[in-house]
Amino acid sequence: MSFRAIEWIDDASVLRLIDQKALPETTRYCDFATPAAIAGAITDMTVRGAPAIGVAAAFGMVAAARAGGDLAAADAVLRASRPTAVNLFWALDRMRRVWQGAAPGPDLSARLLAEARAIEEGDIAVNRAISRHAMAILPEGEVTFYHHCNTGSLATVDLGTALGIIRSAHESGRKTFAYLDETRPRLQGAKLSSFELMHYGVPHAIVVDGASAHVMRTRKVDLVVVGCDRVAANGDTANKIGTYNLALAAADNGVPFYVAAPVSTIDMATATGDDIEIEERAPEEVTGTGATRIAPEGAPVFNPAFDVTPARLIAGIITELGIVRPPYREGLMKLVASPLPPGPA
Amino acid sequence: MSFRAIEWIDDASVLRLIDQKALPETTRYCDFATPAAIAGAITDMTVRGAPAIGVAAAFGMVAAARAGGDLAAADAVLRASRPTAVNLFWALDRMRRVWQGAAPGPDLSARLLAEARAIEEGDIAVNRAISRHAMAILPEGEVTFYHHCNTGSLATVDLGTALGIIRSAHESGRKTFAYLDETRPRLQGAKLSSFELMHYGVPHAIVVDGASAHVMRTRKVDLVVVGCDRVAANGDTANKIGTYNLALAAADNGVPFYVAAPVSTIDMATATGDDIEIEERAPEEVTGTGATRIAPEGAPVFNPAFDVTPARLIAGIITELGIVRPPYREGLMKLVASPLPPGPA
Repeated sequence: MSFRAIEWIDDASVLRLIDQKALPETTRYCDFATPAAIAGAITDMTVRGAPAIGVAAAFGMVAAARAGGDLAAADAVLRASRPTAVNLFWALDRMRRVWQGAAPGPDLSARLLAEARAIEEGDIAVNRAISRHAMAILPEGEVTFYHHCNTGSLATVDLGTALGIIRSAHESGRKTFAYLDETRPRLQGAKLSSFELMHYGVPHAIVVDGASAHVMRTRKVDLVVVGCDRVAANGDTANKIGTYNLALAAADNGVPFYVAAPVSTIDMATATGDDIEIEERAPEEVTGTGATRIAPEGAPVFNPAFDVTPARLIAGIITELGIVRPPYREGLMKLVASPLPPGPA
Repeated sequence: MSFRAIEWIDDASVLRLIDQKALPETTRYCDFATPAAIAGAITDMTVRGAPAIGVAAAFGMVAAARAGGDLAAADAVLRASRPTAVNLFWALDRMRRVWQGAAPGPDLSARLLAEARAIEEGDIAVNRAISRHAMAILPEGEVTFYHHCNTGSLATVDLGTALGIIRSAHESGRKTFAYLDETRPRLQGAKLSSFELMHYGVPHAIVVDGASAHVMRTRKVDLVVVGCDRVAANGDTANKIGTYNLALAAADNGVPFYVAAPVSTIDMATATGDDIEIEERAPEEVTGTGATRIAPEGAPVFNPAFDVTPARLIAGIITELGIVRPPYREGLMKLVASPLPPGPA
């Protein structure tokens, strides 16, 4: 059984989300009926992960159309919910091609629903294809992964990107082990990825983010796989804070570092990582965990939510259309120009 | 005013320690009267930091002598309290040179007390000398540091090693700023170093451990200063987990990485970092913070407490006798063979 982190309930015209803030203690589903409510769920991280955010925003446009609301206003509020993940804008662009210039009414609502469903189903197909391509880079015999943040069923519609590769390796019958960065400040590795791997029976260990270089120096690690929020045209990759440090730990220990990226996260309009806006989040994410305060009252904090891993540290970008190797600018250009639609290659 | 994290109360024959587990919420002092109790305070991290641990162990031997106890047994129980910091063994070796072969009695107790006091006062003098030597490597004008764990007054008898350098820069009138790794799992950076710097009025920001490469890529950082638990003969340095990752972040961004090390932490009997035993601690340090559980029930954890930063990543080792530069084997050999006693050079 998989987790269904995101589901459109058509009878009620609501988007049902598993509340990822409450996991792993509590499995709670919440329904969101308006674009503003869905934008709020994206901002406050009830729903997380670049692919899941894109799908949630697409259904936000369906909710707006059903309510007879102002679609341009709904689009704007959803676009403003988080700045870094490009899938959000990619999904809203797909939806806009349907609604822009179209007359409101049941027919438009039906076409928007069909497009959102296509994005949703496309995500599952994309993740399956990413996992299939990744099998080619695994060593013979047992395989040990290193992973950052959460990129599993909870971050996508199903299966996941990087965590989907780990799960697929395990389900293919290989002996599989994964080290999971706990991923401060929001602890998606300790809370969500460990929760998923326990559920699927994949052996693993949670480690603090600072331990990766030590683990790779003293234990066998075959490869790092991470997800991403945006890939620039030169291959520089924005992902959860701590990814760049993990890539350095891998490079210093000769461990190949791979990014799992749906084609929708590749942003050829962004030349390099320097052009990616990095979201800064509230200091309370760092100064407390749950009810526990961990820093002195009033302690100053700097809390960037993402970082940029330079392309030179990346061994390959695993997409649903195949694995892109350096030099990335040419490879990504060819991939994005490909006549194949995103989906199983 | 400084914190006095450690104080021998001679009338009562007890070692008074600030309970670092309760900081920053609560400033609580606890008294420890026996070697076993003091060893327990070292193991459970009531007292932390390689220099402070060494001094605590020395007073543990005084407590044993006062009680007329078995000094060899006291030495053994103190030696077993934590495996990685070499100061512990260095301080106990100094104490052993006093008690080994000596007749028990008030005279021996007095000589042990004098030796423990000498270690304690030596630590303060050593830290002042480290800070003085470090002034030579600071840039002109304002200076921005990056720091890991806690190495301040709380980790030593007074002033501290790396944090002492930051405090000294600030007190010298320079415009000073420090980024503090929060330092998972025990959060000594967020809890203790931020507490100390707030107290001294040094501007700073707490950052999650995974953010260091991003901060150095996007903001001005002049140098990294860290403490250490043991320096091997080739310059490889054991320090709190996450130090090796921080050194890689610095190297990739051209930021010089310095280790502040009393000569007592240099262990010429250990050839390289591969020969340093790395303590593993309880999984609960990772799966919870305070009362808050952050990982699923039963989630597996790997929790190494220290890592080894390869000498090739270290720009210099700042000791009380001066700054040692690569190649380290010769420089450290010369330093340790120096006829000067540890103290202000």
